[in-house]
Amino acid sequence: MSQATNAFVEQHRDRLFEELKDFIRIPSVSTLPEHQGDVARCAQFVADALTKAGLENVEVIPTAGHPLVYADWLHAPGQPTVLCYGHYDVQPPDPLELWVTPPFEPTVRDGNAYARGAVDDKGQMYMHIKAIEALFAVHGKLPVNVKMLIEGEEEIGGKSIAKYVAENGAKLKADVALVSDTALYAEGMPTLCVGLRGLAYMEVEAKGPAWDLHSGSYGGAAPNAIFGLVELLSKLKNADGVIQVPGLYDDVAAPAEAELASWRQLPFSESEMLAKEVGSTVLTGEPGYTVLERTWARPTLEVHGIAGGFTGAGAKTVIPAVAKAKVSLRLVPNQDPEKVVAAFKKAVAAATPKGITTSVTVLSHSPGLVVNPDHPAIRVAAAAFAEMMGRPTVFVRSGGSIPIVGDFHQHLGIPTILMGFGLPDDGLHSPNEKFCIANYYLGIQTVALFLEQYGKGPS
Amino acid sequence: MSQATNAFVEQHRDRLFEELKDFIRIPSVSTLPEHQGDVARCAQFVADALTKAGLENVEVIPTAGHPLVYADWLHAPGQPTVLCYGHYDVQPPDPLELWVTPPFEPTVRDGNAYARGAVDDKGQMYMHIKAIEALFAVHGKLPVNVKMLIEGEEEIGGKSIAKYVAENGAKLKADVALVSDTALYAEGMPTLCVGLRGLAYMEVEAKGPAWDLHSGSYGGAAPNAIFGLVELLSKLKNADGVIQVPGLYDDVAAPAEAELASWRQLPFSESEMLAKEVGSTVLTGEPGYTVLERTWARPTLEVHGIAGGFTGAGAKTVIPAVAKAKVSLRLVPNQDPEKVVAAFKKAVAAATPKGITTSVTVLSHSPGLVVNPDHPAIRVAAAAFAEMMGRPTVFVRSGGSIPIVGDFHQHLGIPTILMGFGLPDDGLHSPNEKFCIANYYLGIQTVALFLEQYGKGPS
Repeated sequence: MSQATNAFVEQHRDRLFEELKDFIRIPSVSTLPEHQGDVARCAQFVADALTKAGLENVEVIPTAGHPLVYADWLHAPGQPTVLCYGHYDVQPPDPLELWVTPPFEPTVRDGNAYARGAVDDKGQMYMHIKAIEALFAVHGKLPVNVKMLIEGEEEIGGKSIAKYVAENGAKLKADVALVSDTALYAEGMPTLCVGLRGLAYMEVEAKGPAWDLHSGSYGGAAPNAIFGLVELLSKLKNADGVIQVPGLYDDVAAPAEAELASWRQLPFSESEMLAKEVGSTVLTGEPGYTVLERTWARPTLEVHGIAGGFTGAGAKTVIPAVAKAKVSLRLVPNQDPEKVVAAFKKAVAAATPKGITTSVTVLSHSPGLVVNPDHPAIRVAAAAFAEMMGRPTVFVRSGGSIPIVGDFHQHLGIPTILMGFGLPDDGLHSPNEKFCIANYYLGIQTVALFLEQYGKGPS
Repeated sequence: MSQATNAFVEQHRDRLFEELKDFIRIPSVSTLPEHQGDVARCAQFVADALTKAGLENVEVIPTAGHPLVYADWLHAPGQPTVLCYGHYDVQPPDPLELWVTPPFEPTVRDGNAYARGAVDDKGQMYMHIKAIEALFAVHGKLPVNVKMLIEGEEEIGGKSIAKYVAENGAKLKADVALVSDTALYAEGMPTLCVGLRGLAYMEVEAKGPAWDLHSGSYGGAAPNAIFGLVELLSKLKNADGVIQVPGLYDDVAAPAEAELASWRQLPFSESEMLAKEVGSTVLTGEPGYTVLERTWARPTLEVHGIAGGFTGAGAKTVIPAVAKAKVSLRLVPNQDPEKVVAAFKKAVAAATPKGITTSVTVLSHSPGLVVNPDHPAIRVAAAAFAEMMGRPTVFVRSGGSIPIVGDFHQHLGIPTILMGFGLPDDGLHSPNEKFCIANYYLGIQTVALFLEQYGKGPS
């Protein structure tokens, strides 16, 4: 049957891409208050697309933050139910000056669509909607029951959907969740992601003098908030990249030897990653672990932003009163986020220098997770993926965080299929984010095939 | 004769203050390009005030940066020549939200005028002009020859005036320079400053990856520009405040034992400084030195500003490509700024972590200086000051930098009288900078008296 949905996609290529471009043009930056209206408009765009695809019970659900969008089609008795998830919000586009073309005007170059949200996650989420449209167009019905739940706060911690999932277990009951918010391990290689890191995101504020002081008059007597912050941050990770938060590594679960062995079979070139993806002088990180282990299965600590004192053009000789940093820890399976946050706060307090007072604000936290690759739905997904791409599906992990996977696990008791169609160099969260347009069509076709084959029951 | 100029000041109190307010209202922030027009307008305001005071040969002198203003009156043959210096530019007012009243609308509370530049240096520089006006009004002439040279780049390193002084030795020839840009040691205590620290001001830029990266995908493999900057800065000064730049302390000249002994006689309370001026939990700095030694006679290192990555509201999980910091070293007599800058660059290079590249841009540098308190002009100034305030003048140093004093020393071969009327809690460079209005009038009267008595020849 896949031939028919494949043909539908081929036939409607231009329209399917133009619609995606309209979706991407809405600057739904969830973290910036000035884009609140755009985010709301984007939710309505999604709702309209769900209705148009043929889904029922379409709702834009208000929350304390940005709206959720829900829809379903539940007319396949005896068949399993798939809960499709995606997010319509995007990261801020800054630094704007590094974009080759405007971040919210999708522009095609070399077969890629360049825009903020192209791959993360608008393009990939929209594939689900278009797969369903294709199935309805071809069969007049869906092969399985489908529920769709799409959020607008993924990039800012997803608090509203977490609450909604926790409170709506019956409504959202399903056999498996399907999420397309990851990447192929390499171009042309069907990939399912079976492990994610969690995230604990904090703001650290350091205060020194009660007000900014003249460094001539007080240099040598007054504590400096920036230097205090610098001193304490420097103590949280050593020069090798080993986190210095006591107890942080205690609960880290190492991957099974079989999983590590399979990772060693994956094509990987440090020099290529360095040259094409990172662009620094060398790769860095914990000694004794491969890059894949360090990014997939080890906790890390990063400073995402820092600000304090005078940062305009020229010179100002101030001893600053306040400095702030945004800091996160990536977590791996078996680490308890609450415990990690407590250990982090304790480490910050212990590292706070004389004369400085610090506070830590927790913005979000979510655990790391692994999914069993032998689950029937995962097996069907792997088979559909392999069929579409003509080679065996590989199982990988991702170093990123998709907190909703934890919520589905905890509140609905279901595993999540992480079937992503991005590429490693797509530049998520960076200037010039892109989505390979061929993978957009491939994604629509593969999702449709998976739903068809999952509807046939276990093979 | 002082009675007559004192009376003149009393008689014109209101006008003298209203004029100063008009001067202060011009936001002549030299470091911010958007205020370039205001700085130019401010220079013209000064020129007009010099003309009105009775000076001749008034010039607004264009430079590569902001204009200089010059004027003179050279009709006192056989009398010494005094070169009066001041600056009409001010520090940026940020953080704006901490000002009780707008920074460029001088507002009177408790006998103080609150505004950016009130004391540093508009109020104090304007005293010179008004003292000259008073002398002309009372005597129809001046008791000495006077040259005035006023700059608009003091807060950004004073490059243009340095060049001008270096190139115009004959025009600026004088016996002594008079600068009012310092403070009384304590309220009611006549004070001459005979030592200044120098300053070397640098920007340090750290680069990690070639572009911002997703911390999920690359955390554990890619260097982080902010953390790299944090690591390197933390190595430049230890937890006790001892600078870790090799060789930095080699040439430091310790004050003479007599000078140290006189400092021990000055009223000083660490707890009062902590509570009233600094407002942190404790004072900090090099062990083994008093606060006065640490701030007047020891080099210090401060980070004035830091910026990198995402600093907006909410969370962004980015590994930043670039981070920057503004860093300065205060220098003391006998340290060679060029040598210090070279040592700093070397220390930054040595402290740069793996995967990070750094660059250092030097914005300005000037040496520390001491003046001989037995110079005749200093002795007359001390006597005039003591007479006006009814108690002996004390000799102190300042931890701040007035680079022009070094230029006068080097190119004109003259000492500088640092006769300041600020107070220790005036909040220079901070929000709610103020100038005690009584000290404004006192300054006009004292400067006039000094010029009268210096004109009588050595006593």
